[in-house]
Amino acid sequence: MMSQLLALCLFVSLIITYNAPVADARIRHYKWDVKYEFKSPDCYKKLVITINGRTPGPTILAQQNDTIIVEVTNSLLTENLAIHWHGIRQIGTPWFDGTEGVTQCPILPGDTFTYKFVVDRPGTYMYHAHYGMQREAGLYGSIRVSLPDGQSEPFAYDYDRSIILNDWYHKSTYEQAAGLSSINFTWVGEPQSLLIQGKGRFNCSTPGTDASNCNASNPECSPYSMTVVPGKTYRLRITSVTALSALSFQIEGHNMTVVEADGHYVEPFVVQNLFIYSGETYSVLVRTDQDPSRNYWATTNVVSRNATTPPGLAIFNYYPNHPRRSPPTIPPPGPYWGDVDPRFNQSVRIKARQGFITPPPKFPDRVMLFLNTQNDVNGYRRWSINNVSFNLSHTPYLIALKENMHHTFTQIPPPDGYDFLKLNIYERNPNASGTTTDAVYRLPFDATVDVILQNTNSMVVNNSETHPWHLHGHDFWVLGYGRGKFDPYKDPEKYNLVDPIMKNTVPLHPYSWTAVRFKADNPGVWLFHCHVEAHFFMGMGVVFEEGIDRVGELPSSIMGCGATKQFSKP
Amino acid sequence: MMSQLLALCLFVSLIITYNAPVADARIRHYKWDVKYEFKSPDCYKKLVITINGRTPGPTILAQQNDTIIVEVTNSLLTENLAIHWHGIRQIGTPWFDGTEGVTQCPILPGDTFTYKFVVDRPGTYMYHAHYGMQREAGLYGSIRVSLPDGQSEPFAYDYDRSIILNDWYHKSTYEQAAGLSSINFTWVGEPQSLLIQGKGRFNCSTPGTDASNCNASNPECSPYSMTVVPGKTYRLRITSVTALSALSFQIEGHNMTVVEADGHYVEPFVVQNLFIYSGETYSVLVRTDQDPSRNYWATTNVVSRNATTPPGLAIFNYYPNHPRRSPPTIPPPGPYWGDVDPRFNQSVRIKARQGFITPPPKFPDRVMLFLNTQNDVNGYRRWSINNVSFNLSHTPYLIALKENMHHTFTQIPPPDGYDFLKLNIYERNPNASGTTTDAVYRLPFDATVDVILQNTNSMVVNNSETHPWHLHGHDFWVLGYGRGKFDPYKDPEKYNLVDPIMKNTVPLHPYSWTAVRFKADNPGVWLFHCHVEAHFFMGMGVVFEEGIDRVGELPSSIMGCGATKQFSKP
Repeated sequence: MMSQLLALCLFVSLIITYNAPVADARIRHYKWDVKYEFKSPDCYKKLVITINGRTPGPTILAQQNDTIIVEVTNSLLTENLAIHWHGIRQIGTPWFDGTEGVTQCPILPGDTFTYKFVVDRPGTYMYHAHYGMQREAGLYGSIRVSLPDGQSEPFAYDYDRSIILNDWYHKSTYEQAAGLSSINFTWVGEPQSLLIQGKGRFNCSTPGTDASNCNASNPECSPYSMTVVPGKTYRLRITSVTALSALSFQIEGHNMTVVEADGHYVEPFVVQNLFIYSGETYSVLVRTDQDPSRNYWATTNVVSRNATTPPGLAIFNYYPNHPRRSPPTIPPPGPYWGDVDPRFNQSVRIKARQGFITPPPKFPDRVMLFLNTQNDVNGYRRWSINNVSFNLSHTPYLIALKENMHHTFTQIPPPDGYDFLKLNIYERNPNASGTTTDAVYRLPFDATVDVILQNTNSMVVNNSETHPWHLHGHDFWVLGYGRGKFDPYKDPEKYNLVDPIMKNTVPLHPYSWTAVRFKADNPGVWLFHCHVEAHFFMGMGVVFEEGIDRVGELPSSIMGCGATKQFSKP
Repeated sequence: MMSQLLALCLFVSLIITYNAPVADARIRHYKWDVKYEFKSPDCYKKLVITINGRTPGPTILAQQNDTIIVEVTNSLLTENLAIHWHGIRQIGTPWFDGTEGVTQCPILPGDTFTYKFVVDRPGTYMYHAHYGMQREAGLYGSIRVSLPDGQSEPFAYDYDRSIILNDWYHKSTYEQAAGLSSINFTWVGEPQSLLIQGKGRFNCSTPGTDASNCNASNPECSPYSMTVVPGKTYRLRITSVTALSALSFQIEGHNMTVVEADGHYVEPFVVQNLFIYSGETYSVLVRTDQDPSRNYWATTNVVSRNATTPPGLAIFNYYPNHPRRSPPTIPPPGPYWGDVDPRFNQSVRIKARQGFITPPPKFPDRVMLFLNTQNDVNGYRRWSINNVSFNLSHTPYLIALKENMHHTFTQIPPPDGYDFLKLNIYERNPNASGTTTDAVYRLPFDATVDVILQNTNSMVVNNSETHPWHLHGHDFWVLGYGRGKFDPYKDPEKYNLVDPIMKNTVPLHPYSWTAVRFKADNPGVWLFHCHVEAHFFMGMGVVFEEGIDRVGELPSSIMGCGATKQFSKP
């Protein structure tokens, strides 16, 4: 009986496979072992989380509609784990988004968890830990999804390369988290270095450095060198997973043509430097049209903060020059950190490429105003939306909502807006005390939702920070950016409904606003949060539920924590 | 119907309570919040695990037959947790022994786990983390169980005080564990300081010290001061939870009369210094009979290793002298680290008190010879028993065995002995390659089991370490100690079957053997292991199963990991 059933299932699957429109899609199978190891990515030895011995982890290379299977074994000693596939919408597989507390329970030490999802759009994406502050410990990598064989991009290039940017702290994520969550609040401070493709260079002579842990001649921290052939066009896929820093990236003497952002084609424009915020990806085309007898600096530097972090340096190596040969020049300094205008202008400039525009719905069904505030809640420094700071429930929302375990979190939704008439974004928050919640926003399925992110002054006088907001499970249309205070009556008239770019991560500039629109058409439960690791840790996020009744049967592998500890499928 | 049932239950419970022989036993209810905090126990600031903000955690004070309920909330960020109640036999509650991987799954972040057990014997015990190397991070404390009202000890004293000793590392347990479990083995090295009741003193001027984290004037690291009244007798309950160090403890100018060891009365004997090994407890009587016009040093120092760790200092404060007033003398140096004889002799001297002897069974049903070896298994440095190094299964053995999930670990038991004829304990291990196992020893219920621990040379020439072996769920009789190689034909004739002390932890001295006997009469699954944190982490332990069919229904709270992830009770 059993074997007959199996045979039937096999037969049915064969039929399904045969009829599938993506018949040439492949399965890409990865086995990852995650553990702590000592590494010296910037010459300073510290404990990092590696995948198969590496940080950044292996690059996932796939074609559109491929199925990615990643078997993650947690070989950390006492610590759990979850990995988010940033930019992959997880259509039909909301349980594999990898967001601990939202879509799954964490993976316990010794356990192997299998992620399985389809990469349904070409483009540049990333993966990283999404649990506590583990991303900062080094668990991250690139995802590159190319078009199916025979299809081509609307731009030409000879070679395709990935670069992932990060900032790097010498203190452990535990130390950072303990400082952030203490009554005696301790800010993690500026990162010690910037990493390009996992390599940076900390000055071991910096006062206070434990010399025994710092070795400037360690080959691990030799600058990343990208070898290029003269006279060619390179597609550089640039990703930022920084914990904190907004970055500028530039290649000495070379223009860059922006052609892709977060998996969407951009109407091409040329920049000398690319501003990139944590959670964003861009593809730029670079023509190797400079003097081929030398190498050039590729550099990245912190913008938007008056940071002490030195720039990150890599070598743009013109073949056949030696890849380690230093360029004869001083590395270009990059733009001044305090200029908001160039960053704001780049944001505005990014539009959908002609011929590849997905028009947004004309009107929203629901408008949410999200005031970004810093608060002191019961003595703890927090980040909040509308003065409400977010704490993850102990039971992942996807499971709680799908299985009607509504007792596991507050059922009163957080506020949809703020008193925009009274608001003065340039003063310290008059409602600094604030509150916390573990509640979610429940959206009508298929609704068109506008979110306007409004930046304000932080708790520090004359300071407003940059927040890159990332939405899981969706791409949104970027309707507009504005300086100052958003006017809900007038500013929507200026929205770009003609050729807005779609993205999954968008910057909110200091003392500014950013408006996005998305369709709540992906059944599941999705986090929307500031991608600054410390900011989300301090409560800067919200959760959207949509179409929970359309979510398929949850895999039992995502359960086992909070109220789902004893929850098993029959 | 439901309310009638409830009423009936209530009525039945009332009857049970009324008829209970321990009618005056009480419930002691604790709520503990466990988290990371920055503390400076030895003046050097580092991240430690606290209970309700403290390390050591709160002392559990109870009377014999009381029920202890501890609700542990895991407020660590990404890290799980388990707490072991060291010395409590957990009769009838083997699932609350708190040994991660053996008796329970770990407690997840955000979860609250309730331990509930009876302290059925008076005496001095301890609790500490039993997961990864978390004990070293500061999660430990004292348990003091006194006699029921109206009963008294066979010795008199005026006051009862607890002191807990520890050694202290500045590196995180993650860093230590990563070093120990690397192919590129890195030994954690000697601890930076010794703590008496959680307080020590590291010299901030030590070269290489990060001065910004070291503050010699921090009140947190002022020496522990124990105020005593002159002319009185104090019972000092001394506990060691060291990660590594064997210790000597002494109070300048004062004799100590040993009266209790691991909850059992000792035939009194007087010492000037007490040797104590990790996992042991002693009660000593101290008469405050010295010049009352001054204070005295209470000190502890490392023995058995040529350690760089400075002695730990506390003040034995004669009232009404100021408790912070330094004694006018130089702290006594303590015994020479390298002398095995005095330590060996103290071990031999500890016998059961006359009138309180529990006679051991005359003959064993089973004899197990446990050769303690260091090995290099597949390039990893390990500790082993009979050249087999232990790895915990991913599914706790208690659950796996009770629920017949035998696929979760190797069913071939580890070896019971070694070739004692060929053995040369003074040479480096000729079988250094060794193997690993996750198998257990299954003992016939109620069997009398002898275990002879045989020490050998480590991988270092002319070195044999001290291993304090701790048995969960039992007290064993200490049948004897011997120098050199155990002779299974002749040495048992010298066993002390007359007045052997019962203990739960016993030292194995360098190049020596130790023989213990226990009754396998406590249904459950029990760890027996070296209490040196790094040694157990490196595989120095075994697991005994006994009477698994007599174990009651397991609480579902201990499940949720490994093969029990989807395991739920109907």
